[in-house]
Order: sequence, then structure tokens, then C-alpha cells
Amino acid sequence: MKTDIGRCGQTEGNKHSNSSPHVYIENISQYEGQSVTLKGWLYNKRTGGKLVFIQLRDGTGIIQCVVFKPDVTDEIFKSAELLNQESSLIVTGIVKKDKRSPIGYEIGVSDLKILQLVENYPITPKEHGINFLMQHRHLWLRSSNQHAILRIRHELIKACRAFFDQHGFTLLDAPIFTPSACEGTTTLFATEYFGDKAYLTQSGQLYMEAGAMAFGKVYCFGPTFRAEKSKTRRHLTEFWMIEPEVAYACIEDIYDLAEEFICFIVKQVLSNKRDELVSLGRDIKLLECVVPPFPRISYSEALELLEKSGYSIEWGNDLGGDDETVLSNMFKKPILIHHYPAKCKAFYMKEDPKQPGQALCVDILAPEGYGEIIGGGQREENPDILEAKIKQHNLPLDSFQWYLDLRRFGSVPHAGFGMGIERALAWICGIKHVRETIPFPRMLYKIYP
Amino acid sequence: MKTDIGRCGQTEGNKHSNSSPHVYIENISQYEGQSVTLKGWLYNKRTGGKLVFIQLRDGTGIIQCVVFKPDVTDEIFKSAELLNQESSLIVTGIVKKDKRSPIGYEIGVSDLKILQLVENYPITPKEHGINFLMQHRHLWLRSSNQHAILRIRHELIKACRAFFDQHGFTLLDAPIFTPSACEGTTTLFATEYFGDKAYLTQSGQLYMEAGAMAFGKVYCFGPTFRAEKSKTRRHLTEFWMIEPEVAYACIEDIYDLAEEFICFIVKQVLSNKRDELVSLGRDIKLLECVVPPFPRISYSEALELLEKSGYSIEWGNDLGGDDETVLSNMFKKPILIHHYPAKCKAFYMKEDPKQPGQALCVDILAPEGYGEIIGGGQREENPDILEAKIKQHNLPLDSFQWYLDLRRFGSVPHAGFGMGIERALAWICGIKHVRETIPFPRMLYKIYP
Repeated sequence: MKTDIGRCGQTEGNKHSNSSPHVYIENISQYEGQSVTLKGWLYNKRTGGKLVFIQLRDGTGIIQCVVFKPDVTDEIFKSAELLNQESSLIVTGIVKKDKRSPIGYEIGVSDLKILQLVENYPITPKEHGINFLMQHRHLWLRSSNQHAILRIRHELIKACRAFFDQHGFTLLDAPIFTPSACEGTTTLFATEYFGDKAYLTQSGQLYMEAGAMAFGKVYCFGPTFRAEKSKTRRHLTEFWMIEPEVAYACIEDIYDLAEEFICFIVKQVLSNKRDELVSLGRDIKLLECVVPPFPRISYSEALELLEKSGYSIEWGNDLGGDDETVLSNMFKKPILIHHYPAKCKAFYMKEDPKQPGQALCVDILAPEGYGEIIGGGQREENPDILEAKIKQHNLPLDSFQWYLDLRRFGSVPHAGFGMGIERALAWICGIKHVRETIPFPRMLYKIYP
Repeated sequence: MKTDIGRCGQTEGNKHSNSSPHVYIENISQYEGQSVTLKGWLYNKRTGGKLVFIQLRDGTGIIQCVVFKPDVTDEIFKSAELLNQESSLIVTGIVKKDKRSPIGYEIGVSDLKILQLVENYPITPKEHGINFLMQHRHLWLRSSNQHAILRIRHELIKACRAFFDQHGFTLLDAPIFTPSACEGTTTLFATEYFGDKAYLTQSGQLYMEAGAMAFGKVYCFGPTFRAEKSKTRRHLTEFWMIEPEVAYACIEDIYDLAEEFICFIVKQVLSNKRDELVSLGRDIKLLECVVPPFPRISYSEALELLEKSGYSIEWGNDLGGDDETVLSNMFKKPILIHHYPAKCKAFYMKEDPKQPGQALCVDILAPEGYGEIIGGGQREENPDILEAKIKQHNLPLDSFQWYLDLRRFGSVPHAGFGMGIERALAWICGIKHVRETIPFPRMLYKIYP
């Protein structure tokens, strides 16, 4: 990087010489034997006689900085002794190889400058309740588990985009403000829009269908919203979703595409964020099982499996979260469940002409009890059938005229799916609640900070 | 790509043999001399005696398909004659090199299947008014200019993310729902939030500041919202913004970072989407001028330049859109304007200790009259000064306690900027109005489709 981010420390008074460049901890191995400057915060400290051991974090890693009394001025040694958790400081010293260090290096401190001495940092190494931590999310982000989860989130998002970019898809951002609801208005957030009413999107799919007719293969990736009064480990009111849509594709194409996609993103996270997964205690072996082919079972077969496990569901009822948990616990890999009853699914789903009453759709459940992470399907391409379904679902026909246009002007078979990033990330990280998978979670009654 | 997207066409009755694989037009050069299947829509057609020339588009490109009567059945030739704009069709034929073709190839048709014959496609080659086109945005996307702009948008977004990913930044998605406004409530969209009130974000910056203290360097990239009653060529109510934030950085670091960033993204678009830029009539030479260094002038110097051009502005007043246009027309490169009067800027901006009353901030104006595309600054890191400013701006202190925590617990100098993608894209594409730079624009009174 050409830009020397970090001149600022100099202007603030830390006159480290040019021979001690500002470096980030993640790059420390490039500087063995050299004097460098690190800028960060105190993560932990221990003292012993003539030594102060500072665990310094700079956002890219943690490194031990050793202050040895004979090596520094009295003033610097006293400063080091004063430091407490999350104090901001600039450290200069020599990079030394150290076998005992988790990152292989430590710093022999020659200079140290405190920017701010902190008192009473609220998040201490002791246990805190979840409500307290959520209320301090802006600080909790600094803790190593949260740090690891969100670094994995970044990798996962990069992998999702890379997959579709490499497969010839065009990114087409869906709008957030929509004039109508695609699956009913009960779970919609609404806002005044210059005297009109606008709803916050629940899915970009309808817009992606327009996009597929223009670009062949498209995807959107943005926040979506559900005003559900659910307080479960799987629900956020605001979550990010990636939604590919393909013209001239049928449901079997989507089975294959989604399977290939999941294998790709899990593999990329395993390759590039293995250390973070290990630090979270994730069982890597379970993720290494995520290779094709995935089991593919019909809804009817799923009911039989549930029946055998003592869960009886009448044909025609949707699967609930608990049913999904039971099913996804039966397999080591994600499973595809297809051919749900059409009445469980949205108006735009195409019915299987060979199996009336059953939708050409697929849900994918993550293993280990995580449940649904993907929902997809083939869309009804016949304008008359689609119009009848809109009426049947009591949706406002006027709002859907543009959507019907897609069937009037060059209609083709098409299909796609959507994956919620937070649920996928919870599974990949092996954490129970989605609230830790997004930097600032929004949930029922929860909007601060 | 392993996944054979497009089996669907087969099941719909087009029994093309395995020797005619489904391919996309953008990859056509790999199939010279082979029989292939293309799936798309009719973009244009002309007939002459025993020949029908079909311009077929499939979302990745346009290719001429030549139907020669002696080569096909009577039925197929009649079908070809019937086809009209945006009819969906599947074509099989031999890929032939052709020097006259813009893409170097054409198809000698051996088979053709119509999926839907279209009547009265609303967007014809004749001129249409902008209101009509906006009302048909879901179809207008298929037109070649809109297609080119949105392919460039995709490239621009990839470039923005690549820049920060390669420079060690962590992506940290900012929340959309926020409990308070960072720059006043007059231009905010609000929604009921389970009996409470939530506002749609205008900027992720405050959250990125929390992120910078946890990760060192972060960025967010998502939709932001302004309920401005402005009907100008530069305003959308919903637009995408990328916002990096860096701990231990000062304003000069941001000058450099933003300059390097702009050069990087322009260069990447020029490398990978030159054909699209040319098809839009963009003057490529002007974009090739975008290399460092950019002119850097203070607000006071900007006023002098405006004065010389006959525009008199009293020191202390903000620059308006027209002033920006005049200034950005004076230079061939983007220009940095720094040290605005503090009172023109938001409460969190740090004042220059050496020049009281002036903010450590920077706006970057794109050349050719495009005006502001970037706004950035160094943030006030002193908790007492920041608290006083919050009060002074009559903002609710309670809502900002978490933000003040960032100055109580390990405060460090930090800075960042935000760039609106649509304004940057309008400049890069050389188009006047931002409404064409986003798939489904949202503007004053405009929310359909």
C-alpha cells in the first residue's frame, strides 16, 4: 500500500524515526529484526519485577510487547505500569521471533506513548450477560470472538460475490423502497414517502426477474427487512440476502447452482479463515464434509423421515423451525427439500405440471440442526396463471402490472434462490444465535446502539 | 462453469443435440465452427428475400443470426419471419467468423424455436419521453445504453470493494435502522419499530468509527437514504455509499487514500469495461487524465477562484451545487477542497487546532462539472469537545452515549470518507442524470416499478 496511513501518530507527538515504520500486526513477519511502530490498544497486561508484558491489539491481530526496565527510560516504564484495558498507545520496538507466541513474534519495546489512559472499561475478562454485551455492541466488537466472527463474515461475503462474478452473473442492486409487498403486508416495515406509502423490501426477487430478462443471469446482495414479532435465535428484523436469478433456467438448474454455491463459499472460508474458525472452537471436519452431492429429498419424503422420528405432520402443512432442526440433524451435509405443497409457497411459484399441487421449489437446510439457509424456486412464466394467482392471494393487481409485463414481453422459464447471510454464517461459525453474525444486530425491540 | 444452466430450454421442447451446447454470446469466440444453442430475445430484425437477419440478445451480448431459407424447414423460416421485438426464442446454428460483425461472429441458423411471440412491446426504436421510460424501467433495462451503464456499475462496485479488500480493510456492514439522526431529522425517513421509532440511515460513518477502533481499518457499503425534496439531476432518495474509516489516521491520510482510491477505480473500469464506455460515447481520454496528483485547494482558495469567475460567495457560506459545477469545470482532474468553515460541517468534524473555525475535512469534486462525489474528514476525538458539540447542535445526548464511549475508551485520532456510487458512476459514464445509474431509481414521488 502506497498510502502511509498512520502519519497521524507522528503529528500527535510520537517522533518515531523513519527507521521504525508504522506496520500492522498481521504483517509483522515481514519485519523480523527491524524496529517498527505499532498503533493500537491494550488488550491485556501482566507485570513482574522489571518486566511489563503488554498484549497489544491493532485490529488486525494481537502481539505481546515486552517492556524491560533497563531498556527504557523510567518515565516509559512507569507509563507501561499505568496502562489498563483498552488504553490507546503507540509502541516502538524490535520484532523478535518467539516460539511461545501464537503468532510467532513479539516486540522488544524501546519507546511507548500513551494516547489515552482508560478507566473502567465496561467489558472485562469476567463473564457478562448477553443483554449487557448487546447494549455495548460498539465495544464488544473488540473482543476476540466477535472479531473472528466478523472477519469470517467479510470472507463469506467476498466468497458469495466471487462465485457469481466468476459465473457470469451481473450484480443488479434491488431497491429498498417498494410500492407493494410480495408476500403480504403483515411483516412489512412502512414509511411515509412524500405523502405516499413505501415498504422496505423483504426480497429483491421480483426485481431480479426483470433483471434476468435483461442480463440473463443476475444477483442482488443487500439488506432486507421483516417486521416479525419473533424472538428466536434465527430472527433479525434486518438481514442481508444474496439472490441470484437466471433466465432460461428450471428448478433442477437451481438445485445444482445452489449446491455448487454452498460448496464454494464453505471451501473459501475454510481456506482463508481457518485460524478464526479454530479460535471459535469450530469443528473443521464437519465443514470439510460439505462437498457434492447433497441429499435431495421431496417434501413427502421429508414427512416420512419425520414420521419415523416421531414427528407427525399432515401433508400440506409447512415445515416449522423445529421440524427443520430434526431433519437437518439427520444428515452430515446440507439437504435439499423440494416439491413443497404449492399452498405453502408464494404466489409466483410455478406448480409442477406433472405433480399438480406441488411447487417447483427447493429449500436447503444446513446440517447440525441449523435449518433453512436457502429458499428457491422456478417462477410462473404464464401471464394468465400468474394474474389469477395474484388475484387469488388478494394482492393489488395494479402494483404488479410491471411484474406481469415480464410475462407479456418475452416470457421465458426462469428460476433463482435467496440465501440469508447471517443464518449461513451462524452455521459456518458454529454459533447458536444470529445476533452475533452482524455488526449491529436489529431485533424485536432492539435498535441501540 | 460446471452447472449447465439452461437445461430448461431442452425440456421446453428444443431437442438440440449434445453437439449444440447452450452458450452465452459473450463467450461465442470459443465456439468458432461449432454448432451451438443460444437462448435469448429478439433485439432487432430485418428481412430480404430468402434471408431473415435476427439480432439476438441474451443479456451478455448481441449477435446476428442469419436464417437462410434453403438451410431450414419452411416452418422454421415462417417462424423467423413472424418474430418481432423482444420475442423469446432459442436458436441453434454454426458460429461463423464475420468481419462486418461488431463482435466478430455471426450464427448460421439451423433450428429456431419461439417461446413467446410478443405483440406491442412498448419500447420501440423511436424516441420516448423520460417519464415513459422511467415508468417502464423493468423493460428499459434491456436497452443497450442502460445495459452498458449497469454493467459498468457492476465493475465499479467490484473495483471499490477490491481496493479496500486489498488494502487490509475489513468490511463491516452498517445498520439501516438507526435510533437517531447524525445530521438532523429533517431529511430522514422514519418507520414504526414495534412501538418505537426508527430512522433509515443517512450514513454508516458513526458505526464505522466504532468499527475502526475494533478492526483498525473498516468500510461499509450499502444503501443510504435522504428524504430531500430535491428534484435535481444529482438526487436520489435511495443511493449506495461506500465509507472507509481508519483509526490512527489524520486528514492528510484521507487526502491520499481518497486520491489513490479514485485513480484505482477509474483505471479498473477503463481496463475492463472500455467497450461499454465507448458504446456510451464516453470520451476515454478524459478518464485517462485521472492520475495522481489531484489539485488540492483550500475552501478559501476556492472562493478566490470563484470570485475570478464572477461568482461571489461570502466566507462562511457553504458551496452550492452550481459553485461546485463551476469549480469542477476549471480542472481536468478531480480536485480536493479542504478546510471548509466548521459551521458548514457536521458536529463530529474536528476543527483544525492551527486554524480555528476551519474543519479538518475534504470534499472531492469530479471534473467536467460533475461536482461532489466524496466527502470526508477527521473526527473529533476529545470526549468533552464532542459532547459540547452534540449539545450545541441540539442533538439528543442519550442517543449518542455509545458514540461518546468511543472517545472514553481508547480514543485515537481517526478519519474517513464516503463516496456515493451513483454520482461517481454518472461521472465515469458521462451521463447527466443519476437516475440512469441505479437499476430501480427512487426519487421524489417516484417509487414504481
